[in-house]
Amino acid sequence: DTCPAVPPKAQTIFINGLPCKNPANVTAQDFKTNELSKPGYPDIFGASIKIVGAAEFSGLNTLGLSIGRSDIDKDGLDNFHYHPRATEMIFVTKGGLIAGFIDTKNQVFQKFLSVGDVFVFPKGLFHFSLNYGFEDATYFSVFNSQNPGLVSLNPTYFDHTLESIEKLKKRIVSLSTSEVPEVTGFASRELESIYS
Amino acid sequence: DTCPAVPPKAQTIFINGLPCKNPANVTAQDFKTNELSKPGYPDIFGASIKIVGAAEFSGLNTLGLSIGRSDIDKDGLDNFHYHPRATEMIFVTKGGLIAGFIDTKNQVFQKFLSVGDVFVFPKGLFHFSLNYGFEDATYFSVFNSQNPGLVSLNPTYFDHTLESIEKLKKRIVSLSTSEVPEVTGFASRELESIYS
Amino acid sequence: DTCPAVPPKAQTIFINGLPCKNPANVTAQDFKTNELSKPGYPDIFGASIKIVGAAEFSGLNTLGLSIGRSDIDKDGLDNFHYHPRATEMIFVTKGGLIAGFIDTKNQVFQKFLSVGDVFVFPKGLFHFSLNYGFEDATYFSVFNSQNPGLVSLNPTYFDHTLESIEKLKKRIVSLSTSEVPEVTGFASRELESIYS
Amino acid sequence: DTCPAVPPKAQTIFINGLPCKNPANVTAQDFKTNELSKPGYPDIFGASIKIVGAAEFSGLNTLGLSIGRSDIDKDGLDNFHYHPRATEMIFVTKGGLIAGFIDTKNQVFQKFLSVGDVFVFPKGLFHFSLNYGFEDATYFSVFNSQNPGLVSLNPTYFDHTLESIEKLKKRIVSLSTSEVPEVTGFASRELESIYS
Amino acid sequence: DTCPAVPPKAQTIFINGLPCKNPANVTAQDFKTNELSKPGYPDIFGASIKIVGAAEFSGLNTLGLSIGRSDIDKDGLDNFHYHPRATEMIFVTKGGLIAGFIDTKNQVFQKFLSVGDVFVFPKGLFHFSLNYGFEDATYFSVFNSQNPGLVSLNPTYFDHTLESIEKLKKRIVSLSTSEVPEVTGFASRELESIYS
Amino acid sequence: DTCPAVPPKAQTIFINGLPCKNPANVTAQDFKTNELSKPGYPDIFGASIKIVGAAEFSGLNTLGLSIGRSDIDKDGLDNFHYHPRATEMIFVTKGGLIAGFIDTKNQVFQKFLSVGDVFVFPKGLFHFSLNYGFEDATYFSVFNSQNPGLVSLNPTYFDHTLESIEKLKKRIVSLSTSEVPEVTGFASRELESIYS
Repeated sequence: DTCPAVPPKAQTIFINGLPCKNPANVTAQDFKTNELSKPGYPDIFGASIKIVGAAEFSGLNTLGLSIGRSDIDKDGLDNFHYHPRATEMIFVTKGGLIAGFIDTKNQVFQKFLSVGDVFVFPKGLFHFSLNYGFEDATYFSVFNSQNPGLVSLNPTYFDHTLESIEKLKKRIVSLSTSEVPEVTGFASRELESIYS
Repeated sequence: DTCPAVPPKAQTIFINGLPCKNPANVTAQDFKTNELSKPGYPDIFGASIKIVGAAEFSGLNTLGLSIGRSDIDKDGLDNFHYHPRATEMIFVTKGGLIAGFIDTKNQVFQKFLSVGDVFVFPKGLFHFSLNYGFEDATYFSVFNSQNPGLVSLNPTYFDHTLESIEKLKKRIVSLSTSEVPEVTGFASRELESIYS
Repeated sequence: DTCPAVPPKAQTIFINGLPCKNPANVTAQDFKTNELSKPGYPDIFGASIKIVGAAEFSGLNTLGLSIGRSDIDKDGLDNFHYHPRATEMIFVTKGGLIAGFIDTKNQVFQKFLSVGDVFVFPKGLFHFSLNYGFEDATYFSVFNSQNPGLVSLNPTYFDHTLESIEKLKKRIVSLSTSEVPEVTGFASRELESIYS
Repeated sequence: DTCPAVPPKAQTIFINGLPCKNPANVTAQDFKTNELSKPGYPDIFGASIKIVGAAEFSGLNTLGLSIGRSDIDKDGLDNFHYHPRATEMIFVTKGGLIAGFIDTKNQVFQKFLSVGDVFVFPKGLFHFSLNYGFEDATYFSVFNSQNPGLVSLNPTYFDHTLESIEKLKKRIVSLSTSEVPEVTGFASRELESIYS
Repeated sequence: DTCPAVPPKAQTIFINGLPCKNPANVTAQDFKTNELSKPGYPDIFGASIKIVGAAEFSGLNTLGLSIGRSDIDKDGLDNFHYHPRATEMIFVTKGGLIAGFIDTKNQVFQKFLSVGDVFVFPKGLFHFSLNYGFEDATYFSVFNSQNPGLVSLNPTYFDHTLESIEKLKKRIVSLSTSEVPEVTGFASRELESIYS
Repeated sequence: DTCPAVPPKAQTIFINGLPCKNPANVTAQDFKTNELSKPGYPDIFGASIKIVGAAEFSGLNTLGLSIGRSDIDKDGLDNFHYHPRATEMIFVTKGGLIAGFIDTKNQVFQKFLSVGDVFVFPKGLFHFSLNYGFEDATYFSVFNSQNPGLVSLNPTYFDHTLESIEKLKKRIVSLSTSEVPEVTGFASRELESIYS
């Protein structure tokens, strides 16, 4: 039924996933977390991202789910990244965002999202979300893996002046205004302009 | 990458899951839904439950996730039920609840939850949540299946007087006050008292 | 190829499933059991149920199967229950039964079964079997999980007088006489009558 | 929940597995079969083997199980074969047998089986069963695939005189008398002698 | 057993994966391809990459494998990219390369490879290979998915002068000279320098 | 991301698959092997077969792939065998071969292969390859399991004179000359002739 994880620091053997606690020591507390009641630490883009998987929330071990919270400043961006082991679904609880992903044919699929909206980012594909600027925004994420992983294009590798971040955000906004991005090749042009 | 579903009513062939739209007709709208912006219809327990899977939100097809929203009246109950095809994780955005599940050894695992708390119900196990009474409560659910299914113990089958519903809710509350329910056999006694 | 389980009581580490014996100690005996040569213990319904999984039959570990035996008295019932981790298939070797399951749309699918008949109960759905009364009945079960789990609606929670058990059994019989139960809502009415 | 198969002859599209019937046409009969109430046709070894999968028993479609029946004459043999897509578990209901399998290190694991005994043949490994000669024997098989497949070493390819079949059976019997076959290389020697 | 694909252009229904040909029309040719006997088209980095999955090689449908061939000029680079649906293993048949991947903790794992060497790139992680310059190099790839997908960081988005490509290649070489890259944070510094 | 195996001889616990090294001790060397740079040992058929899985190449652990190399003498044969846990794909780098497999309906699917050709052997089915005689041949194999297993029909069990091996090879050649073997029953006749 359940298999709450031994805390990663207490591991003495290593397997794919995490070993389980002795069933005699499992309690209801293993299945609850309050990690999402507060935001994570902000990055240079004005995004505070927190992901809670089985390593942090032991009851998730073997159950195939994890959860996250993102708080995006009024002028913030959750920059391009992907999760190699999970599809992600987001649910907006505050503010407004532009969210999108790029498929393996380089098509962009993106939409404006308001409170109550849900959007899905398929497994392993690059995605982003951008606050469109009226107030701070919050959304919650779920992943169908207890350890989704995260690979980011950290912008500091490319160009880390404040100016360039502003430029990138404006471009996503202008891109989204039209909302007809489902044309092959569009993503290429857009990414080119974003990072050039 | 993606495989948004043909609407169930338009199906001409039947397979496990849902056939996909012609890829030429996929748009960004397939990956967004606003179904969760409003509550579902209330049942006799004062609970309004809504589940949105691939049949309603086509972009979820083949991606292994679905989502739900539950609004529980101040004196409401999301009565015992289970999902045969998914683990569920809930996230409280309003009010306070007692949530719990019963494992196959008849142990109950339950906790008080406040805004920001997350709880997990393992795949195929009976679970419930009860508003503990100060204000209306709302939580969002995610499932690691695009079609989790739902099997309920509809209380009308047993005893549908208002009095009996009140009795059931009070018992869950008294049960939860102690919060040391992890003893084999406890669930049996409790369920016995709940439904007798 | 094979991975016979360490006996659960000898476990020192805990993982999802069971650790394996040292391959040097595996013998042919690990792949044989005679647990099904005798019935289990009878419950108050006149049903003796026994399930043999990897915890009892070590050779099944990692192979994805388990097996069971049910002996139902002439006037006995294998009451409503489900297995959260497996589909079950039964094979009748003695007597006659009415067997059925309820799907997530509340449809009942049930049939009369004689010696040699096979019936299947899909994963996670409530099912039952009732001796229709001419002689004791025996059937064997298989599950496509090494640990199918069992969740029952123990009737003692509802109404445990002998009279009520009789009533329940008679109703399943009358229900089955018609054998046209595939109408949405039928299950609801029937369960209502069974337990009221 | 369920997805009973369109009969293979009525298929107009081809997928991995079988397409499903229109759900509106599913009845309880789809989940029952009486195919196992009679034996299959005997082969030259005195074995009558019948396997019933989703192509014959439509309700099994997508549920991951199939079933079989074997009737072995007093001096019969279910000769070496394997199932590429399933583990098999057998349950003896009549007579006595020697059953065994050979793992990928060429170790033989075999046991005498009587009525009520269960033995397991891991997925994809060669196995056999031999009546040890006091009366006709019957056993039932289950597989954790709806289409297990069967690959046999048809003895006619090697030497199909009655004499050679007798020789093969006697050797398995003499081999089994000792019942200490778990030594690497043993299988090789035995198979060499069986087929030389 | 097998399920060779209908050619994608002939599809009339759409499912996850590809529908199968009518089994009556399957021939041995479906299981053979000579697509790898010639290199693909060169890109601006001096790399000619070709991936052959079930859409091109119908016999692979449902079998969970695909294959590729990469020809890298003496001064060429197979630039950073990942496959969202497969682990890749490469086998060098000509020349010498530096190959590596970056895990989700930003550690780089890379090695010099000569003819006969094999290297593995885990599912969903960025990887690259660089000819270290003595002669043209060729390697073959396999993927454990019939449709691995490919997401690349097309360098034209960043800086497409010949000079910058030279710079990037020199940096990978200098990085590889030490071959002690397994330190957290190293990848970050390296990528920063590569793209700045 | 990765989970390189503890060497099998150092195992103290046993699980399905292999335990992982302490992540602190993982290096790039875990993901590289040069085992395929040299052929394996020749068998009596003139075939030198080597399979490298997670037990030999620790980085493959949990990644679902393994690799092999086969060197077949000018007059050699890789005799009938199957892998119970994997589909195999081969790629010819030297010489010419006839390769084929037999499905569960006893149909043979076989083709002539030259340098650059790829052929696929579905999971669990018997297959072979025969050098057609102009020069030594080499091909590389991949499997979609880290531990594919191998079950062979060792010809010494049947008839191990040099003459009989010659006979077998000539028959496969004559069989292949026609290259229209996709007729039910053909394999039976051919195997009969091969081994009689």
